[in-house]
Amino acid sequence: MSTEIFSAAKLAAPRLAAAGRAEKDAALLKIADLIESRKNEIIEANDADVCAAREKGMREVMLDRLVLTAERIGAIACGVREVAALPDPVGVVDRGYVRPDGLRIERRRVPLGVVGIIFEARPNVTVDAAALCLKSGNACVLRGGREALNSNGALAGIMRDAVESAGLPADCINFLADTTREGANAMMHARGFIDVLIPRGGAGLIRAVAENSTVPVIETGVGNCHIYVEKTADAKMAESIVVNAKTSRMSVCNAAESLLIDREALGMLPGIADALREKGVELRCCPECLAVLDGRASKATEEDFAAEFLGPVISVKAVGGVDEAIAHISRFGTGHSEAIVTSDYFAAEKFLNGVDAAAVYVNASTRFTDGNEFGLGAEIGISTQKLHARGPMGLEALTSMKYTVRGNGHIRK
Amino acid sequence: MSTEIFSAAKLAAPRLAAAGRAEKDAALLKIADLIESRKNEIIEANDADVCAAREKGMREVMLDRLVLTAERIGAIACGVREVAALPDPVGVVDRGYVRPDGLRIERRRVPLGVVGIIFEARPNVTVDAAALCLKSGNACVLRGGREALNSNGALAGIMRDAVESAGLPADCINFLADTTREGANAMMHARGFIDVLIPRGGAGLIRAVAENSTVPVIETGVGNCHIYVEKTADAKMAESIVVNAKTSRMSVCNAAESLLIDREALGMLPGIADALREKGVELRCCPECLAVLDGRASKATEEDFAAEFLGPVISVKAVGGVDEAIAHISRFGTGHSEAIVTSDYFAAEKFLNGVDAAAVYVNASTRFTDGNEFGLGAEIGISTQKLHARGPMGLEALTSMKYTVRGNGHIRK
Repeated sequence: MSTEIFSAAKLAAPRLAAAGRAEKDAALLKIADLIESRKNEIIEANDADVCAAREKGMREVMLDRLVLTAERIGAIACGVREVAALPDPVGVVDRGYVRPDGLRIERRRVPLGVVGIIFEARPNVTVDAAALCLKSGNACVLRGGREALNSNGALAGIMRDAVESAGLPADCINFLADTTREGANAMMHARGFIDVLIPRGGAGLIRAVAENSTVPVIETGVGNCHIYVEKTADAKMAESIVVNAKTSRMSVCNAAESLLIDREALGMLPGIADALREKGVELRCCPECLAVLDGRASKATEEDFAAEFLGPVISVKAVGGVDEAIAHISRFGTGHSEAIVTSDYFAAEKFLNGVDAAAVYVNASTRFTDGNEFGLGAEIGISTQKLHARGPMGLEALTSMKYTVRGNGHIRK
Repeated sequence: MSTEIFSAAKLAAPRLAAAGRAEKDAALLKIADLIESRKNEIIEANDADVCAAREKGMREVMLDRLVLTAERIGAIACGVREVAALPDPVGVVDRGYVRPDGLRIERRRVPLGVVGIIFEARPNVTVDAAALCLKSGNACVLRGGREALNSNGALAGIMRDAVESAGLPADCINFLADTTREGANAMMHARGFIDVLIPRGGAGLIRAVAENSTVPVIETGVGNCHIYVEKTADAKMAESIVVNAKTSRMSVCNAAESLLIDREALGMLPGIADALREKGVELRCCPECLAVLDGRASKATEEDFAAEFLGPVISVKAVGGVDEAIAHISRFGTGHSEAIVTSDYFAAEKFLNGVDAAAVYVNASTRFTDGNEFGLGAEIGISTQKLHARGPMGLEALTSMKYTVRGNGHIRK
């Protein structure tokens, strides 16, 4: 069954790649309309998923991610309309020049072809991902988690109807209902059919896909992000940034998981610690920091410094300057987002230049690493790899390029 | 042993990434100088390879690729000096803007980290690849073919000496002397050590690496390139382009392997066929073309249309217009370089827009798909995949990017 779906996607891809902006936007607006007008159908399918999940004892926080209400469905439709309003990345010429022999060379953006998305329990990803693929001229194959099977199936069916009624092949959007390991495996080995695979979810999923796929993968999202409070930092700014980065939304990849603090700035630690504890955050500290905090914190293990807690815990370590901070980040960081709080020009520059991550901040919270916050419109994920795309991936990350060369009978000497 | 080499490369990478242009160029010039001054050592090592290959009965054409003469060594050194003269891709800011809240975002080019190159018998690749990696701030791990083991080892040793004497770690350039399958496998599974793997060589090697590597791969080079002679083509231009694309250098990936000719342009075929035969090229034709050629050609099989001959054979097929040409290319092409010869504006535009390949030409030979011809300086290969880089890859393809974000105490609302 999966093979048929992959073939259908591959067949639809050139038609979608050739579609102009008007045609793609019309299909997106139709998707938004149909999602709203058929919301009862979606809620019914979602109810079945939620009931089953509740019976299986799914945790409340996960359950909350699964639930679709009329309001949330409205927000999903709204998101699709926002994608329709974004500029079309396809056809943009980002480079063009004439060679000495008169050959005219241009490089333009083209769709990737077929994009596969493997994701977990959040049904809104089904629509977000499909909309971004459609806008960038890519056919997609979506495979969500078992827990959201009914919801995802309903959403995908509605999107296929919408795309077809807008005059594009329904197979521009494909839904793989096989939520077993075999389904994921089939996608990971669909070379020649799927051009790129984007896993969205936990670290385990992403690792499994990256290690097993023969289709090229874009890795997303694992973030062990650090805030380094340098000795010249403004104490109030440091506290505000650390609290924001750690607590404004704990479950996301751009949240801070570790605080590095200069030995000469340890005087700021009690204040920062109080502010964090007020938000319910547990501090796991190196011995030096523990001493400063008079035992009102626990002792950090090596694992704590490597952990992406995604919850109310932060690791804390004293360091002896920027170089030591960079070395620690290089050892424990995941190349996502790293920040320094400082008033020192040279410390700021050293940190910006020396830290190897998708986004490096001076005097700002790591929570800004996000497609919308970076002004990219929507995002398909945050790449933590170095190939193709790094950091928040907008529509451009869903394109490749093509050289066009215009001659006048040119032959190579 | 391979693990030690990978670790050494990873350790050297940050030092090289932080090196400025002056430092990298000094190392490159030192490499060029040492290659010239120690050429006897290289020739001696190469003699051992050539003798062994001759004893094993290596074909003359392959043997020729293996041989290093004083002149060829001079050309290799010259190539390194040309790389030194290229602009440094690292640090270039390709995008920068201020967000409404005043956050200042820039995107700059950074090295990938550690680049692995798996290649076959040509020892010059050892130096070319190392020079491009060094210039782009990447440590490299080189693993060449068994036939050139002594030559490659000598060249790598000399380059390591040069890099060290220029004040950079010798481990910026690493040579894996294990030419067994295990050596290649170790590289393909060195996740966390090697950031990207570039196979350079025949289709079999590239396929094996792409399918087995868990390290991200950039696929290079397989080219089943077509020239489509549209019915409004200028006959003389068509003949000149077909002959150039097929015969100017038959063993390379941008050489034409297939001629598509419009049914209404079959009158041009005998002239083109004569010109090709004069260069010793055998034509394998569809029945229609065979009839026009009065039997002075052989019959093409389905395999012929899919073949990358890399030699004096071309497949020939009559088609009924641009759409049919595009469909044939979509079925048999490898996404490398495709050309149309035409005088018709609409045919040209349709071909440029409809053909999915790294480079699409109007009225020019496919032989221009090359880093130097495209003005990129040198090239590390020609990518035929869609992720990260497509077409000739210059220094820029050996970089990733990093967002730097400067704030003033910014926190996310």
